[in-house]
Amino acid sequence: MSVATIKYWIREGLVPPGATSAPNQAAYDDAHLHRVRLIRALREVADLPIATVADVLAVVDDEGVPLHDALGRTHRALADVPDIGDSPTADGAIDEVDTWLHTMGWQVSADAPDRIVLAHALLVMREMGREESAVDFQPWAQAAMRLAEHEVGTIEGADGRADAVERMVVGTVVHGQVLGALRRLAQEHLSAQRIGDPPPPPGGAPPPD
Amino acid sequence: MSVATIKYWIREGLVPPGATSAPNQAAYDDAHLHRVRLIRALREVADLPIATVADVLAVVDDEGVPLHDALGRTHRALADVPDIGDSPTADGAIDEVDTWLHTMGWQVSADAPDRIVLAHALLVMREMGREESAVDFQPWAQAAMRLAEHEVGTIEGADGRADAVERMVVGTVVHGQVLGALRRLAQEHLSAQRIGDPPPPPGGAPPPD
Repeated sequence: MSVATIKYWIREGLVPPGATSAPNQAAYDDAHLHRVRLIRALREVADLPIATVADVLAVVDDEGVPLHDALGRTHRALADVPDIGDSPTADGAIDEVDTWLHTMGWQVSADAPDRIVLAHALLVMREMGREESAVDFQPWAQAAMRLAEHEVGTIEGADGRADAVERMVVGTVVHGQVLGALRRLAQEHLSAQRIGDPPPPPGGAPPPD
Repeated sequence: MSVATIKYWIREGLVPPGATSAPNQAAYDDAHLHRVRLIRALREVADLPIATVADVLAVVDDEGVPLHDALGRTHRALADVPDIGDSPTADGAIDEVDTWLHTMGWQVSADAPDRIVLAHALLVMREMGREESAVDFQPWAQAAMRLAEHEVGTIEGADGRADAVERMVVGTVVHGQVLGALRRLAQEHLSAQRIGDPPPPPGGAPPPD
């Protein structure tokens, strides 16, 4: 890590300035180091712009934001919401997503930005000539809910509010990358079994007859 | 879509030039339109750079690449592989990931780039003081394998090689976004139930006593 980068983060308000211990010297403690590592994780793993990192850290630092609201606000900062316009087609896709989420009994904010991400996916698939409805998202929804059970469980075991918010942020970002990588590897594994050359049988090739 | 954008894609070799029907006129057919929509999907949904789109399309177009190899090659093009250096720590994380994948019986290329994505996630979590091992990825691996069963199944129903490769690409990219959005929404739902204000009871608030 370069000193210039850390000074930039201090100027942008991402890291608090160190205590002035002498002219031209500042003392940094473990909390500073931890914050620097958190920022680096968000920048490196998720390639998040500085402004997004700043939004996320503002939620982490604001003790006045209750835990559940903090989760919603960090998600809002982390969601990369496409602009789908406000045509009747776009509105129809959002309505379809909302109706489906409601049917599943999912309790989410009426303006959650990830609804737009889902509507955009529908629009793109349809434009590609692949008729897909929100109900076709069911397998991904089931997988997402099983994972969320596990992920929210780890938050419940957190050591206080700040640790809980940080776990959410790091978990959402880092485990999002982990999930993406494992999904591609799982596809490769199954594809090798089903549509690739068949693997050699256990114990080696059968003896020639 | 602007004409300038499509002309740029033609110059970059992403879209074949139209048949010259008259001076200063080119005729485009349904295949052109389909290709333009595919590029737009990859650009808009996954925000992929033009060079990555070109790599993916080269695999789609090369009839000589068998289906399983095509999946591996598109994954390679789509993976955003971090540079984790070659320190003993980094090598140790990759070994740990490889051993775990082997233990699970996952059959993946020895140089699959998503192994590095997983090793990077381990390194980041550890630097954040969160001790995490490859075996802790198990819940995400299970979810990924269940989804891959569904996803590879849709490829098996494809209408020929080109359609199959395109399904892989669109599915990996678009359903990756869908999964990310649903994971955040599922977290919000569970967080509302468990750590948020409790929802009002069915039938409204209890009567005052």
